[in-house]
Amino acid sequence: MNTTNQILTVSIIGSGNVATALGEVISSNGIRVLEVFSPNIDNSKLLAEKVGCNYVENIEKLNTISDLYIIAIPDNEISNVITKLKSKEGIMVHTSGSQPSDVFEGKFHHYGVFYPLQTFTKGKQVDFQEVPICIEGSNDITSELLVQLAKKISNNVVLLNSEKRQYLHLTAVTVNNFSNLLYNLAHDVLNEKDIDFSLLHPLIKETAVKIRDVNPYQAQTGPALRKEISTINKHLELLDKYSEYKEIYNLLTRQIINKHHG
Amino acid sequence: MNTTNQILTVSIIGSGNVATALGEVISSNGIRVLEVFSPNIDNSKLLAEKVGCNYVENIEKLNTISDLYIIAIPDNEISNVITKLKSKEGIMVHTSGSQPSDVFEGKFHHYGVFYPLQTFTKGKQVDFQEVPICIEGSNDITSELLVQLAKKISNNVVLLNSEKRQYLHLTAVTVNNFSNLLYNLAHDVLNEKDIDFSLLHPLIKETAVKIRDVNPYQAQTGPALRKEISTINKHLELLDKYSEYKEIYNLLTRQIINKHHG
Repeated sequence: MNTTNQILTVSIIGSGNVATALGEVISSNGIRVLEVFSPNIDNSKLLAEKVGCNYVENIEKLNTISDLYIIAIPDNEISNVITKLKSKEGIMVHTSGSQPSDVFEGKFHHYGVFYPLQTFTKGKQVDFQEVPICIEGSNDITSELLVQLAKKISNNVVLLNSEKRQYLHLTAVTVNNFSNLLYNLAHDVLNEKDIDFSLLHPLIKETAVKIRDVNPYQAQTGPALRKEISTINKHLELLDKYSEYKEIYNLLTRQIINKHHG
Repeated sequence: MNTTNQILTVSIIGSGNVATALGEVISSNGIRVLEVFSPNIDNSKLLAEKVGCNYVENIEKLNTISDLYIIAIPDNEISNVITKLKSKEGIMVHTSGSQPSDVFEGKFHHYGVFYPLQTFTKGKQVDFQEVPICIEGSNDITSELLVQLAKKISNNVVLLNSEKRQYLHLTAVTVNNFSNLLYNLAHDVLNEKDIDFSLLHPLIKETAVKIRDVNPYQAQTGPALRKEISTINKHLELLDKYSEYKEIYNLLTRQIINKHHG
């Protein structure tokens, strides 16, 4: 750790959506990314170019001088990568919502979690200022350093322990991945019927921002809320050809009815 | 119908969310709302006050001089109201996504559909300029008059026949009502775990606007897409207490996996 008691230099392990988004925003906010490692050499090169650093072809050759090592890789590869990492003086973090911080326990002195709660797609810029960053540190000093760094890139930094982070991650998957599946089902049917999917854009956006003012229970509308059985049956008929979509329609309709009339 | 070949006067039948939103935006754009009828007298009075007109206590007393009668009531009450309406010279429309236009056939000369594709909640202002309004008319002149009116309040007016409108409504229910249920499930669990639901706001919004740039299939992310079975199982464990949520998690996860790996 450097003597200024700040995180000034970073190594990035990973070259996917999260690694790329974090690498870019960190390096454009005055922190030096020293190196990138990823088994995917092509992605690794690309990210290294973007942030102006070297890429490392072998995980064992990662430096030992960075203040922070950010592991931004798929959840199920984290423990495997940890076993391959040599001991470091710097802070070791992962960016996973679902993994506890103690995956690092015993091997590293300073460790924690740096979880940016957002969906990242390459090529789609995200405004980091409003992305919540959930921090957990193995001790107070580590937490403090991570919070300091996080505040350089976001106005929305919170300390959150592993248990709470798991629930937050579960609900993030729900509102992001599952809503996106719903958009996908809608997109496919409209496409097939030669109807412009973009007609739904304003509704999708309004649905998403409405719950900032009205809680989701109050914000519920639609035929299931009103128990309009004939409309529901008509929809199910339209979905006769789309059995997977129909299964989702059935279950979610039933649950809205139960929630509001049960 | 007036001789200027424009819709200048309107009667509104209904006093719920859609009736209120439409009444307000129409009257603030130079069209005169002459009267409101609704079996709910209190709501009826409120809306009449807002738009500065009379309310009618008996549906049979609706005037015969309005250029347009807008029926904005729950789907399953439309046919019943139509049977009670006396014949009119003006255009008769409903605002339903799921009802065909021919519910008016035989009883009225000029009729159609005026379907604003948005979610309306009382007290939550909606910017009508970008709300798609889907128009269907019983003949070309009727369609043209309805389109003219719609263009006074929105930049996004399309002609759409009854069959296509049904599919659009089905998908609107999907992206709106079902996404909102997902938000609600997330909200309830976070609330119980004392975690601030507003941490999800940026993610929810980004998920919703991302699909303007990236199609939903490409936009998919998360543990199901990556087939991270251990994360999925951990989530299912967290949901042991929440059986309805768990059922949804299971089904939607399975479908994302099928869609991308099937």
